[in-house]
Parts: sequence; structure tokens; C-alpha cells
Amino acid sequence: MKIYLLSLCALFFPSLAHAATDVELNSAWVVLASALVFFMQAGFALLESGMSRAKNAVNVMMKNFMDGCAGGIVFWLVGFGLMFGANATGWYGMSHFAPHQGEPWDFTFLLFQMMFAATAATIASGAMAERTRYSAYLIGAVVISGFIYPIFGSWVWSGIYGGQGWLAKMGFIDFAGSTVVHSVGAWCALAGIMVLGPRLGRFASDGTPRVIPGHNLALVTLGGFILWLGWFGFNAGSTLAINASIGLIALNTHLAAACGAVGAMLALRTTSSPVLLSTTVNGSLGGLVGITAGCATMLPGFAMLTGLVAGFVVVFGMRLLDRLRLDDVVGAIPVHGLAGVWGTVAAGLFFTGDLFSWARVSVQLIGAGMAFVWAFPLALALYFILAKTIGLRISTQDEQRGLDYAEHAEIGYPEFNQSLTFDGTELTRRA
Amino acid sequence: MKIYLLSLCALFFPSLAHAATDVELNSAWVVLASALVFFMQAGFALLESGMSRAKNAVNVMMKNFMDGCAGGIVFWLVGFGLMFGANATGWYGMSHFAPHQGEPWDFTFLLFQMMFAATAATIASGAMAERTRYSAYLIGAVVISGFIYPIFGSWVWSGIYGGQGWLAKMGFIDFAGSTVVHSVGAWCALAGIMVLGPRLGRFASDGTPRVIPGHNLALVTLGGFILWLGWFGFNAGSTLAINASIGLIALNTHLAAACGAVGAMLALRTTSSPVLLSTTVNGSLGGLVGITAGCATMLPGFAMLTGLVAGFVVVFGMRLLDRLRLDDVVGAIPVHGLAGVWGTVAAGLFFTGDLFSWARVSVQLIGAGMAFVWAFPLALALYFILAKTIGLRISTQDEQRGLDYAEHAEIGYPEFNQSLTFDGTELTRRA
Amino acid sequence: MKIYLLSLCALFFPSLAHAATDVELNSAWVVLASALVFFMQAGFALLESGMSRAKNAVNVMMKNFMDGCAGGIVFWLVGFGLMFGANATGWYGMSHFAPHQGEPWDFTFLLFQMMFAATAATIASGAMAERTRYSAYLIGAVVISGFIYPIFGSWVWSGIYGGQGWLAKMGFIDFAGSTVVHSVGAWCALAGIMVLGPRLGRFASDGTPRVIPGHNLALVTLGGFILWLGWFGFNAGSTLAINASIGLIALNTHLAAACGAVGAMLALRTTSSPVLLSTTVNGSLGGLVGITAGCATMLPGFAMLTGLVAGFVVVFGMRLLDRLRLDDVVGAIPVHGLAGVWGTVAAGLFFTGDLFSWARVSVQLIGAGMAFVWAFPLALALYFILAKTIGLRISTQDEQRGLDYAEHAEIGYPEFNQSLTFDGTELTRRA
Repeated sequence: MKIYLLSLCALFFPSLAHAATDVELNSAWVVLASALVFFMQAGFALLESGMSRAKNAVNVMMKNFMDGCAGGIVFWLVGFGLMFGANATGWYGMSHFAPHQGEPWDFTFLLFQMMFAATAATIASGAMAERTRYSAYLIGAVVISGFIYPIFGSWVWSGIYGGQGWLAKMGFIDFAGSTVVHSVGAWCALAGIMVLGPRLGRFASDGTPRVIPGHNLALVTLGGFILWLGWFGFNAGSTLAINASIGLIALNTHLAAACGAVGAMLALRTTSSPVLLSTTVNGSLGGLVGITAGCATMLPGFAMLTGLVAGFVVVFGMRLLDRLRLDDVVGAIPVHGLAGVWGTVAAGLFFTGDLFSWARVSVQLIGAGMAFVWAFPLALALYFILAKTIGLRISTQDEQRGLDYAEHAEIGYPEFNQSLTFDGTELTRRA
Repeated sequence: MKIYLLSLCALFFPSLAHAATDVELNSAWVVLASALVFFMQAGFALLESGMSRAKNAVNVMMKNFMDGCAGGIVFWLVGFGLMFGANATGWYGMSHFAPHQGEPWDFTFLLFQMMFAATAATIASGAMAERTRYSAYLIGAVVISGFIYPIFGSWVWSGIYGGQGWLAKMGFIDFAGSTVVHSVGAWCALAGIMVLGPRLGRFASDGTPRVIPGHNLALVTLGGFILWLGWFGFNAGSTLAINASIGLIALNTHLAAACGAVGAMLALRTTSSPVLLSTTVNGSLGGLVGITAGCATMLPGFAMLTGLVAGFVVVFGMRLLDRLRLDDVVGAIPVHGLAGVWGTVAAGLFFTGDLFSWARVSVQLIGAGMAFVWAFPLALALYFILAKTIGLRISTQDEQRGLDYAEHAEIGYPEFNQSLTFDGTELTRRA
Repeated sequence: MKIYLLSLCALFFPSLAHAATDVELNSAWVVLASALVFFMQAGFALLESGMSRAKNAVNVMMKNFMDGCAGGIVFWLVGFGLMFGANATGWYGMSHFAPHQGEPWDFTFLLFQMMFAATAATIASGAMAERTRYSAYLIGAVVISGFIYPIFGSWVWSGIYGGQGWLAKMGFIDFAGSTVVHSVGAWCALAGIMVLGPRLGRFASDGTPRVIPGHNLALVTLGGFILWLGWFGFNAGSTLAINASIGLIALNTHLAAACGAVGAMLALRTTSSPVLLSTTVNGSLGGLVGITAGCATMLPGFAMLTGLVAGFVVVFGMRLLDRLRLDDVVGAIPVHGLAGVWGTVAAGLFFTGDLFSWARVSVQLIGAGMAFVWAFPLALALYFILAKTIGLRISTQDEQRGLDYAEHAEIGYPEFNQSLTFDGTELTRRA
């Protein structure tokens, strides 16, 4: 086969008679973007594992490794068809299940969309870390990839195989998925942590939040860098074609991330809080989530503003969760949910050629709201059923021992002496 | 120069008179794929180091860093010519040694092939970890990159500078190298561990295998993700041109990896074994190795089947090695060797348009067998000679102290207190 | 928007009437290259953090995370205009400040150049690690990205918006920035460590240097691999267009890095020093810095020679610093400064079609010298002013405690027991 291709190449190179077609070029572009989006899975694994305690490091890694695998297969089986299949009603797709044959572009498109589904599914793992039963988590991820995410997605992004989503018909703008991917994932995460309850010791009996530090900030930082890297594929790859907007999209993505980190830093400084590395990384991720909806339709100055505000949203969102006694281990809900809503609104506010149009913003608010209305109750039901059947939360003893010992028969760092892992009881919030 | 190019760009952009030629486009594609394949070297380093004990972390890293450097230079010097030079007989190439001048495509092609040679050479390092003398290992890597790998490669992939390999003439299919790269590397590894013998304490005196846990599963997982990422370049880059098959190849690659992980998980569950992170990662790598031969010539459903079976092959292959008292630290032989054979057969079985053809499968079996017949005895001789001359295995005392202390004057984590590193004696296989 | 694009795609695919234009194709190429260069920021963070002690791990990560963010924003605000704006005099640009609108290519070009500015700024962080006040460091990085780097850059690379730099007019060759990026960054680093002074215990009272080992060599190695990966984007992306030289550039980059590692190994062996992993990685980085100037204008054999010599330059440069009692934590000055000068000279020596031309070499020497004359005194003044105002170096007590505790209220590995972190007093240089 290789030989065959080489011979073909040899035929073509001297004459340069063959010109790569657009489908071929776009396939190369989207495959490279898919690889970058795939790598985000590693970013999530590192970020979430680093923000957890060492006794749960393997568990977090395993979740992030397997939700992409199992979720990807289920997305191929049913999710893709529900999301992109012929969408007569505008509410769900009904073709292209378990696609096995197709034109070249079909395969490329499926690959890219599989990576997106994995991203949506993996967002919950960080929020729900350190106390969730592995099997229950995986079932949840499969339902998100195979049903919750694709149905909502069909309202916005269907069309390749006919029909159009009802939100798309209204003019809802979500270029690469601030709402479709990130908020949907975050509302599932919110439902998960509400059903689970906080980790042991995370809140004192009077409700005072206590910091439970992550075990490895090198992993957190590297995870943040990898996510940022992958986002170039996530946003610029969403063009699905090599076109003139690629440069602007990538630039907006980068500027928003930088401003998100600066925004988080400013938010922390103005409230006399220590500028934590973990929160700064989250600020940049908030900027990335925020720009995802409008990266193709706003100018760089607005992208910076979008990112800056997202940094603030992340910091104050984390405090809001603390006040509500919700335990989101990595800050997934502020980063993906709240910054996602802000970004979806910003995509309307800063739309090039139609700035600050109330009509546009109201459609964006409807879309962002519908994501909550769809994903949150369904995920609440899902996790509630899991809790009442196979069990969603591990036992107190297993939580104290760590999930690696309890559920995986493997520990992350067997040779390194560890101090008694924090259970939060001896910690107070740092100044 | 930059100025010059900018001026040229300025000339061309307004008019758009210049259209990128296929050689230019394909160069961009193959360079990006080469970068991804290069990054696999980091994936191997992390995976293998994480699966070793902390006292050997530097040694494993050094091996993976230097075999690509030294092996790459030797491949440039002689390997490339042996593999791709004019191949009159079908058994070896005889031109293009130490290429210094050439057409643009010559340089691009050489770069991509250098990365492949490094991959073949580095496979042995993981299997032979924790007990091999550094200098002897490097000599072995140089011989693999410069002679063992390229000669076999010339039987299958030569042709760009004339002639055709004898296996290629028979119709042997190995698109990106399940056999050419992975199995050849694995059979060298097998020879290596046979000459070396197992690590101290790896098998009890009655032959019962004991688990020696890796020191850092975060590195293992990240290594697995990076390898998976790099494989998109490995397989889709093997088109050597931007063409319509890229999307299918990348999709098959991804699906097979996901199914490999699921296959390993199922294999472990059905035998009531704990689902280890390290084995799950190996399952996905088995899926990737398995699909490498046939990724361009089978449909997605078959890619999934290929990956799923590969996951099982990895799990049972690891047990087989245990039974044979062969100590393969990272499972390189099941992952790259056995899954490579399976993938080579699968490429025949599931060939689009000619399913389940016995003629095709028998050619595949011949090719897979020839890889063993060529690489294994040669590598056995190589390592045997090394053992009898400069020495292949370090002393017992140095093995206990760790190679970092004994051979590198540097330790991986000098500030972290470590428990007495496992020498296996106090460990029993976990349920 | 997505829907809109999809409809457009659907329109174009059947007919293949649309052909991607060169601006579009080059945008895709440069965006991917930008992503790779961005990832170098992660490489620096890991390399520098791993070479520091655990008590400063968060601080080093934060610096590398934030200098790209803050420096990027300042580069957008003023640096880009100073560097690439209309350059009437040849000494500085004066347009395109805070670019908000533009043609597609403007955005792509800006993105790529922002990544380069971040690289230049981040080089100092490694040399100055473990003793620099965080706020003072960030101000320094902002001045480098916004003023020192872009002004020098305008002498060599301006032109896209009119005018030409005075060094470019002389025929100075620095394709991707051995001098413009790496040496400029290194001379700033040199000024920084001269103002700062060495870490506590780094030199005995009689001047004998003591090794202070880095805390995590796995991070160092991964950082090295990531930098190497990113360099493919750095060098090959500097074409700014998909053209025929991409393959040669990438091949030269790879060969020089491999030979740099081998060169460092040989330099260590010939002086009977232990072959340290950290120095070997630095050797490959020296090779990469060295080939950066001439990667597009020399043939592979010369690239190898350039890299090999760079490996020696790095090793002997590190010793020279030791003799001068300068404490460069990661070896940034030998790697980016000395190897940068060598590479700039090599670009003249080995220029294809005009080998060993003294005229050419003398221009290269002028350019390399001017970088020192411009950047070093300015950076010296900058850091001196910072030292006399807000303070550049932290207190002795804070240095002993570590910057993570003193400046960030967060520690890198809170659960792992650590031996008393080395303060150098009990260490002697290893044989």
C-alpha cells in the first residue's frame, strides 16, 4: 500500500499535475485539529489529577483515560447519529448511527466530533473527583457522550446530513461550543456534585470552606498548558475547512486565554487574596471557554475583554460555590459553566458588524438557558438513579483510604513517603 | 532570508498568483506528522520511566533521549541508504547514504523516516529497563536503527529511489509498520530480555511472578496520551501526501486505540483481575500497534474489532511472558510484538474489497514471520556479543542501588524521601 | 456561524470549485506552527521547574505561565508596532500598535510573533530562578517583550508594513532568531543574574562552585522533549508560508538537536565528567538554538556540525559561568546566548552557495555583537532600577523557605515528605 502510494507520488511529483483538492486539504487540517483536541484529554487528566490528593491520582487518570474511550465508542454508536443525523424536527438527528462506510469527509468529520464529545463528557470528572465510584462515573460519562450532549448539539450544530437545529434557526451563535460543549458538561458536573455532596472535611460543620490542596501543581500547570494548546485545534479546527478566518480565531483564542489569566490575577489582587497558581490556570481556561462561542465573529480587542471578564467570572464563581457549600474539586463549573454562559453572551454582544444588539444577546441568553434546562435536570436524574442503584459515592472508609487503593489496586507513587493525606480537618482557609 | 521570504510573500499575496504546489503542501503535512512522531519519543520516555522504579528514572529517560539522537545519526549515515536506497535485489538498498544534498522532498522524506527508525530502536528500552548497562544499550540501539530495522524495512517499503522489496512484491501490506517498526522492535526487545534475564526478585525461586510497581503512574498515563497523540502522525503521516484517505486513517487509529483500552479492561474483568491503569494504557497502545498495518485499507468497524482483539492480546501476552519467566518491564513485547502480529494479520483479514481472503492472510503471516526470523536471531547475537564483551547487565549491587546512582551520577528526585525501593521480595501478586 | 460554514462547505465539496488560496493555506500552516511555539512555553516551565528545588516549583511555573500572558498583552499593545510597524529609519517601527482590525493575514502574523516575544521574555526566568521577586520578574518580562526584544527585532525582521531594518540591509541572516530571540533573551538573563548574585550556597567562600540538583529530572526531560517539538514550529513556521524549504528546515533542526546532545555527551566524556541528563538535554537545546539562524540556508551536513559544536559550547559555557561565579540555574546563557552567537556565525560560515565567506561572517558577527550591545546594558539598567526600587531579590529568609511559601501561599507537592531542601552548604561538586 505504501509502495503503491509512493509510486503514485513519484508519478505526480515531476509533473505537479495533481493539485490537492479542498476535501483533501480540509481533511489534513481537521485531522491535525482533532489530534490537538484529543490531547486536551491529557490536559484534563493532568489538571484534575494534580488538583486532587495523591491517594486519588490513579482514579482521576483512569476516569479521564476511559471516558474518552468508552464515551467515544458510544458516541460513534448512537451519539453521532442523534447529533448530526438527518434532523427533520430540529430537535434530534435520526441517521448515521454506528457509521461504518462513507465518503472521505464523513470519516474526518466523525473523528473531529468524537473528540468534542469526549471533551463534554470529561468535564464532570474533575468536579466530582475524589469521592465518586468509578463504574458509576463511567456510566454517567457514557450517557453524557451518547445522549445528553448530542441531543443538545443537534439543536445547534446539525445540518451536515440535512435539517437544521431549532436554536440554529433562531440565529444562536456558538462557533466552537462555549455552550454546546462546555456549559453542557458543566451543568452535568453541577448535578453530579449536588447528588454526591462535598468531600469529607471540605466544609466545617458551620459551613466554613476549607482548602484541600492538590497534590502536584506541576501536573496542574502542564495540564493547563496542554489544554491551551489543544484549544487552538478546538476553536480553529471548528472552521472544518482551511479558510481565511483561521488566523483571527487562533489569535482571539490566545488573547482571551492570556487575558483570562490576567483577569483572575486582578480579581485575586483586588480582593487581597493570594494569587494561586491553580486559580490563575483556571482563569486562562475560563478565558478559553469564554472565547469559544464568539472566536470567529469578534475582533481581537473584544476577545481580550471577553477573556478578562471570564477571569473574574471564574474567581467569583469559585467563591459562590464555596458559599453554596458545593464542592467542585477543580473549579469545573465556574470555568466551563459560568464562563461558558458569559462567553455565549459575549458572542452576541461583540458580534462584528452588529455590536451590542439586544436581539442578538437575547437569543444567546435563550441558548445558554436551554443548555441548563436540558442538561441539568437530566443529569440530576441520571446521577440520582445511579446513586440509588449501583451507588454513586464510595464509602467513607474508602474515601479516607483513597480511591486508588479502594477501587484500582494500584497507587500513583508507591515509593514516595507521604504525609497523612489531608482530610481537610486540620486546614483553614489561607489568608 | 526572512526579509527575503517576506518580500516574496508580499509579492504573492495581493495577486494570489502563486499556488502552493503538491510537494510544498505534502512537505508541510509530513513535517507536522514528523513532529508528532518525534513526540512519541517523549511518550516512550515517560511511560517507561513511570513503569520503572524511581532509582532508575534518569537512566530510562537518558536511554530514550539518546537512542533517538545517536540512532538518528546512524540512520542518516547508513540506515536510510540500506532501507530506501536503490534496491536492485529486493533485499537491501544501496544508495543515498549520509544524504547531504537533494530535492526538497528528499529532506522531508528523510526526516519522517528518521523518526520511524527512532521509534523502532526505542521499543527495546522499556522491556530491558532497570538492569541494562547504558553504553551497551546505546550500542544496541545504534545497530537496530542502522542495520536490523532498515534492512527489514527495505523488504517492504523501499522504492522511492528505485527497486521494490521482495515482501512488497508478494503483496505484503503494512501501511505504517505494525510489523516493520513495532514487531521488529519487539523481537529485538525479546532477545534483549532473554540474554539479560529478569530483574532481581521479579520471580520467586519457584517461578511465581511478583509485581514490581512503577514509581509514577502520572508519567505512565501522560506517556500513553502522548503516544496516542503521536500515532496520528505515525499513521496518517504515512500517506506521505495530503490525500483523501487521511480522515479514515486517523479515525481508524483513534477507534482502535479506544477499543484496545476497552478490550484490555474486558480481558481483565472476565478473568477477575484488577483493572490496572498501566494495563489499560497498554491495551490502548496494543490497539494502536494493531491498526498500524491496516489503517488505510479497512473500514471503521473492522478497526474497532482489530483494536478490541489487540487489547485481549496484550493482557494475555503479558501473562504468557510471566509464565515463561520473561521480565518485560513495560509489556513492550505483548504491545508491540504480539499486537503487531495480530494487526498484520488483521490488515489481511479486513482488507476492504477482499475480506477474509486466505491468500492475503497467508502473505501477511509470511511477512510477520519473516520479521521474527530476521530480527530475533540477529538481536540475540548482538546482545549476546555485548554481554560477553563490554557487558550487558549491570552488577547486582548496582541493580540494587539503581542505575541512576551507578551509571549517571544524578538521581531523579533528590529531595523526596523514598521508602526502600521495592526489590520484589516482599511483594506478592495482587488478587 | 458553524451552520453557515457547513452550508458553504456543502456547496463547495461536490463541485470542488473552490480552491484554498495561499493566504488560507499559509494561515493554517502558521497557526499550527504558532501552537507548537506556544507549547515551548510549557517546555520552559517544566525544564526550569525541574532544575530548581521543590520549594520553588510553583514560583517557576507561575513565572513561565504569566510572562507569556502579561508579556503577550504588552507585545500586542506596543511591541508588535515597534517591531513590525512602518520602519522608516531602520531602527524602530511606528505603526500597528494595539492592532484590532486587519486582513486575515495580519491576525495570523501577529499570533506567530506574539509567541516569539513570549519565548524571548521567558528565557531569563530560568537563569534567575530561585531568588527573584515575582513582581519584579514580571515587570522585567514585560519590558523585554514590549521594548528590548521588539526594538532589536525591528533591525532584522521588520518589513511587512514597510521599511527594512538596518541589520537586514547589511545582509544579516537570522532566519528564525538565534540572535533576535535567543541571544537577546540570554543577555537579559545575564544582566539579571549579575544584579541578583548567586543563590545562597551556590559558591563556597573560596569561590568553589557547588551543584544544587534540580528536584525533578522527569520534568526536565519532558521539558526538553517539548521544546524540541515546539522548535519544529519555531523554525519551519518562520517560513511564514508553505514552501519548498520546510522539509530542509525541519530536518536541519532535528539533526542539529541530535548532534547537540551527542556533542555535549562527547564534551563531558572527553573531560572525564559524568554525562548528566540535565546537561545532555541542554546540549540538544544548544543545537536547536544554534541551527535557528541558518536552518533555511545550510545543508544537512553543516547543520549537524553546527549542532555538534553547539553541544560543546554549552558544556564549556556552563563551566565558564562557574568560573566567573555567575549562577545560571538552568544554563540559559550558554544554551541561548553562547550557542546563539555560534549559530549566528555558523549561518554565515555554512551559507549554501557562499561557504566560508569572511564578508558574510563579519556581518553575522556585527549582528550578534549588536544584540549584546543593545540588550545587555538596557537589561542591566532595568534590573538595577528594579533592585533599587521594589527590590529584585527576595530576603535570605524567604530564599531559604522557598518562594512558593514566601510569595505564592501554595506549595508544589504538599503531601510528599521532603528532605531538608539543599541549600548547597553540604554539597560538593561531583567528580
